[in-house]
Amino acid sequence: MSNMIKEITEKITERLPEKVKLAKVEFEGPEVVIYTKNPEIIKDNGNIIRELAKDTRKRIIIRSDKSVLTPPTETIEKIEEIVPSDAEITDISFDDVTCEVIIESKKPGLVIGKYGTTSREIVKQTGWAPKILRTPPINSETIRKIRLSLRKNSKERKKFLQKLGKRIHREALFDNDWVRLTSLGGFREVGRSCLFLQTPNSKVLLDCGVNVAGVDDKTAFPFLNVPEFNLNDLDAVILTHAHLDHSGFIPYLYHYGYEGPVYCTTPTRDVTTLLQQDHLDISHREDKPLPFNIKDVKEALNKTITLDYGEVTDISPDIRLTLHNAGHIVGSAMAHLHIGDGKHNFVYTGDFKNEKSRLLEPSVSRFPRIESMVMESTYGGHEDVTPTRNTAEKELIKSIYSTLNGGGKVLIPVFAVGRAQEIMIVLEEYINHGILKDVPVYIDGMIWEATAIHTAHPEFLSKDLRDQIFHIGKNPFTSEVFKKVTNNEQRQRLIDSKEPCIILSTSGMLTGGNSVEYFKNLCEDSNNSIIFVGYQSEGSLGRRIQKGFDEIPLETNGVTELYNVNLKVVTVDGFGGHSDRKQLMEYVRKLSPKPDKILVCHGDAYKALDLASSIYRSYKIETKTPMNLETTRLQ
Amino acid sequence: MSNMIKEITEKITERLPEKVKLAKVEFEGPEVVIYTKNPEIIKDNGNIIRELAKDTRKRIIIRSDKSVLTPPTETIEKIEEIVPSDAEITDISFDDVTCEVIIESKKPGLVIGKYGTTSREIVKQTGWAPKILRTPPINSETIRKIRLSLRKNSKERKKFLQKLGKRIHREALFDNDWVRLTSLGGFREVGRSCLFLQTPNSKVLLDCGVNVAGVDDKTAFPFLNVPEFNLNDLDAVILTHAHLDHSGFIPYLYHYGYEGPVYCTTPTRDVTTLLQQDHLDISHREDKPLPFNIKDVKEALNKTITLDYGEVTDISPDIRLTLHNAGHIVGSAMAHLHIGDGKHNFVYTGDFKNEKSRLLEPSVSRFPRIESMVMESTYGGHEDVTPTRNTAEKELIKSIYSTLNGGGKVLIPVFAVGRAQEIMIVLEEYINHGILKDVPVYIDGMIWEATAIHTAHPEFLSKDLRDQIFHIGKNPFTSEVFKKVTNNEQRQRLIDSKEPCIILSTSGMLTGGNSVEYFKNLCEDSNNSIIFVGYQSEGSLGRRIQKGFDEIPLETNGVTELYNVNLKVVTVDGFGGHSDRKQLMEYVRKLSPKPDKILVCHGDAYKALDLASSIYRSYKIETKTPMNLETTRLQ
Repeated sequence: MSNMIKEITEKITERLPEKVKLAKVEFEGPEVVIYTKNPEIIKDNGNIIRELAKDTRKRIIIRSDKSVLTPPTETIEKIEEIVPSDAEITDISFDDVTCEVIIESKKPGLVIGKYGTTSREIVKQTGWAPKILRTPPINSETIRKIRLSLRKNSKERKKFLQKLGKRIHREALFDNDWVRLTSLGGFREVGRSCLFLQTPNSKVLLDCGVNVAGVDDKTAFPFLNVPEFNLNDLDAVILTHAHLDHSGFIPYLYHYGYEGPVYCTTPTRDVTTLLQQDHLDISHREDKPLPFNIKDVKEALNKTITLDYGEVTDISPDIRLTLHNAGHIVGSAMAHLHIGDGKHNFVYTGDFKNEKSRLLEPSVSRFPRIESMVMESTYGGHEDVTPTRNTAEKELIKSIYSTLNGGGKVLIPVFAVGRAQEIMIVLEEYINHGILKDVPVYIDGMIWEATAIHTAHPEFLSKDLRDQIFHIGKNPFTSEVFKKVTNNEQRQRLIDSKEPCIILSTSGMLTGGNSVEYFKNLCEDSNNSIIFVGYQSEGSLGRRIQKGFDEIPLETNGVTELYNVNLKVVTVDGFGGHSDRKQLMEYVRKLSPKPDKILVCHGDAYKALDLASSIYRSYKIETKTPMNLETTRLQ
Repeated sequence: MSNMIKEITEKITERLPEKVKLAKVEFEGPEVVIYTKNPEIIKDNGNIIRELAKDTRKRIIIRSDKSVLTPPTETIEKIEEIVPSDAEITDISFDDVTCEVIIESKKPGLVIGKYGTTSREIVKQTGWAPKILRTPPINSETIRKIRLSLRKNSKERKKFLQKLGKRIHREALFDNDWVRLTSLGGFREVGRSCLFLQTPNSKVLLDCGVNVAGVDDKTAFPFLNVPEFNLNDLDAVILTHAHLDHSGFIPYLYHYGYEGPVYCTTPTRDVTTLLQQDHLDISHREDKPLPFNIKDVKEALNKTITLDYGEVTDISPDIRLTLHNAGHIVGSAMAHLHIGDGKHNFVYTGDFKNEKSRLLEPSVSRFPRIESMVMESTYGGHEDVTPTRNTAEKELIKSIYSTLNGGGKVLIPVFAVGRAQEIMIVLEEYINHGILKDVPVYIDGMIWEATAIHTAHPEFLSKDLRDQIFHIGKNPFTSEVFKKVTNNEQRQRLIDSKEPCIILSTSGMLTGGNSVEYFKNLCEDSNNSIIFVGYQSEGSLGRRIQKGFDEIPLETNGVTELYNVNLKVVTVDGFGGHSDRKQLMEYVRKLSPKPDKILVCHGDAYKALDLASSIYRSYKIETKTPMNLETTRLQ
């Protein structure tokens, strides 16, 4: 038994009433799990556990010993008695490994009860520790599969967590004299973000993405073949958000033998799984095989440890991780690393939006301490100033309004995650308020599934949305204005219809997917319009349309036809998930406390350099813009 | 057989007269060795070999097949017939492994003969390939032992070279997309210089020194425990010069299993061996054991491959090394790396003096190409301006003159290597020209041995010295004004004597060694003087004397006595082996071509930063001053 476990056992035995019988105390990953034959007594002594947690700086979980569990059928009956029917329980299942009863409910708050009274009652009466999950109001195939997979994998997962627990709590052998960061991808470029952080005691990867625009392995994937990077020595992977340029190469790590955890928020886990699967599907369709497969995506999922914002977690003997809201997409996070008992504090912003949006709160800018920071610079050039969200919304509504009034259809090509939901909320509001005509908003492609995942995690959305959902009981995503499009017949029907409508479809840059098909059918009618709300990269069809090409040759089933572009082409800036130049500078201004050193990444070379030099000039903070493959001392 | 060997064999067979019989062609380290039964014919066709060497960009060595060797006794007789007696052969020995006859001679030029005619004659008549070494005019124990050790080790060395040859000429597997340099020691500090250079195909260490002033392993030794550094993957160690802050940790590499070569000049090899042994002796005496032992020093010696200035050598599949004079101490070099067929060219200056001195030519500043450079900044602060060599000499002579005229003794504490010889040459000249009194110059401590090594390598000394030695036949080091002091009796005698004299003794900062003993005996007499010609570090006895302390407590055999400092204390700047601030800037100005990027190392942080910023401002060359443990992209 490790010293720490011994110490915790002693402390808890000392403090709890004598009649409490501890069956076992052990690490499961970063958590301390206490198995007891009297879970009810421990639950009644919550403050003792809270104190112990504070004292040991550990997260402590209480579970019942198998011997005191009520049989499942009886448990289900009791739960149905205890929980009010308003909670709308949709499923109850049992995890024999963790002694948890998994309750899926449309209103999980009611299963928990005020101050947790209801869930405590469940423990008392059944012995089972309730694990309460939200049933998404829009059915999500992804979440269903993820929950199923985790349930099936419970035994393996427990073994994994126990092993990991020992690893995390091993002794720190060396003095924390330095912290160094190697740029393995996403420096002086956008794509394949990958940061490798080393201390004398630990090695951690922050993000591990792909550049989907990369032309070969050398440009598409991060530089994992450097001699300092070794999968066996890796303590943890921290994932800041789900986009493939941050998450897309994680399955590769598992393919080549990584056995450790991925830390991220629950929405990030869910969206990442969706996007990774989609990436494999596309690469399969396009016959551009990736160096990993679906098994590795599942392995990554099974080894993911989800964290809430603000939850402090040991991930190695000398590193504590806390995730904070980044405001970029649902579940996106900044990673704060507290290293060597606070000798050094490091923040990696990931992609972030320093402005409140419909969907999300603005990124966090106050930290207990920061000595060094790595920040993104996607819009770091001094010319990268975009309109405010408010202006953007007005612009968008104005364009839609005139098209609809003219009897036309509006096509909005969007990325499935983030931008789409942002636009949906805007549309729902304006339609509901009667400002826009009550036309159907067709949701095509992966957007629906991504939206469903959003509905499973309202805690991660903006305060306004949460208020709407929890207090007013009105979830904009479930509004009837949204119509799901799933097959070609439906597609053809809405195209053929004379009725005006709005269509949201992927891909966002018309580089494939149904947005291209819609475009072909809508482009020749000057009553229609296409509205770009996101970045169109050079060479994409979206960019050519944006530039005003009159005629565009497009292929259908191997035959190329020339299309006349008559529809109105509109670009609305300001819906981006990234901070613009002003917001980036403003973010550093309001950062508290100020770091000693800022490394700028995730931006074209000149933007990164431009931002770095402006930050230095304005705030006298040392800045660097490392190249990929460089190693920088943080401490 | 490797493809390259096959190709070379074909080419040579094609070009040489038909009757030539090749016995074998193989790699020995970077060289191609051709064994033949008709060495005489090949020797007569030197131009074919030269062309082949040019063609293949390889160094080609011809050796005889064992079957055609004349027996040793007969060979000795023939050599004595062929070589004129003026050559003063001191030893002839045979290396059965390499089929070389090793001829040590006081005038090796006469053994070689004009255009190599004499040595060619030896091959023709005996079959043995002559390896001609200089018998140092001052007997050097170090060189005697080194030569003995290498001779003894010949069989092992051949195996080593054959294995190394295969390794060097392995196929380059990856494109040369990048070159990165990790600072493992000696950045933003002076001491423990260590640069780790990686390409996709190779890994090379440049210098591997110790900081003798380091208080513990963490401050004394380079950061070899980083995960990217692995002894098994190391292709080569390049040593720029012999001082311990560049060479002192090389034995450690062998202690922990490094089996590859060290590349350096012959004087560097010899002086390094002397200093490494001395380092072990001192650490043993002071009971501060080093993490390696004398076996490792020998191992390093046996695996050293010496190169002349300007000699281009393959050291890995994608790196060619050329050493150039650095003007710092005898044999000191700048390392030029030609990487990836010239895709990138890198120069590491090591320590360098951009000014002609008595002893050495100024550092080389013209290279075929340079893209990036690492340069030293010991005197890189803007305040680091020292007098010219000429002024320094006058200052020195003036002080000595007045002391000698007053009947006093002059003590000059010096470092054994470099400074001592520089001063010796000056003294010899002024005494010989009758400007200084013809008093004895006592040479104490390791200086004598270091000087002896200098006399073995006149080719590495300044043109003036070479002219004196080779053409006028006058070697200043062998002058009768120098008296070797080897024991306490001699020391006491010269102290007790009323006659004026000059004493050169180590250590240079009076941190130990006989200079302290001389000081004790000379300091109370105001007729005497002590002249500092080198840097006195804070805390050293030298520094306290320099600062003008009147009374100094010193220990003798455990008893502390108070000494009154009455002797004259003089400091003469300008004899340093480093470029001063002006010379550093001037060096960059005259560098041809100019590199795109200069990394500044080997200087206190503020001096490195000061120099880097001045270079950037003056020449618009990108500069960096990495910290230890940082990795910088060169390409």
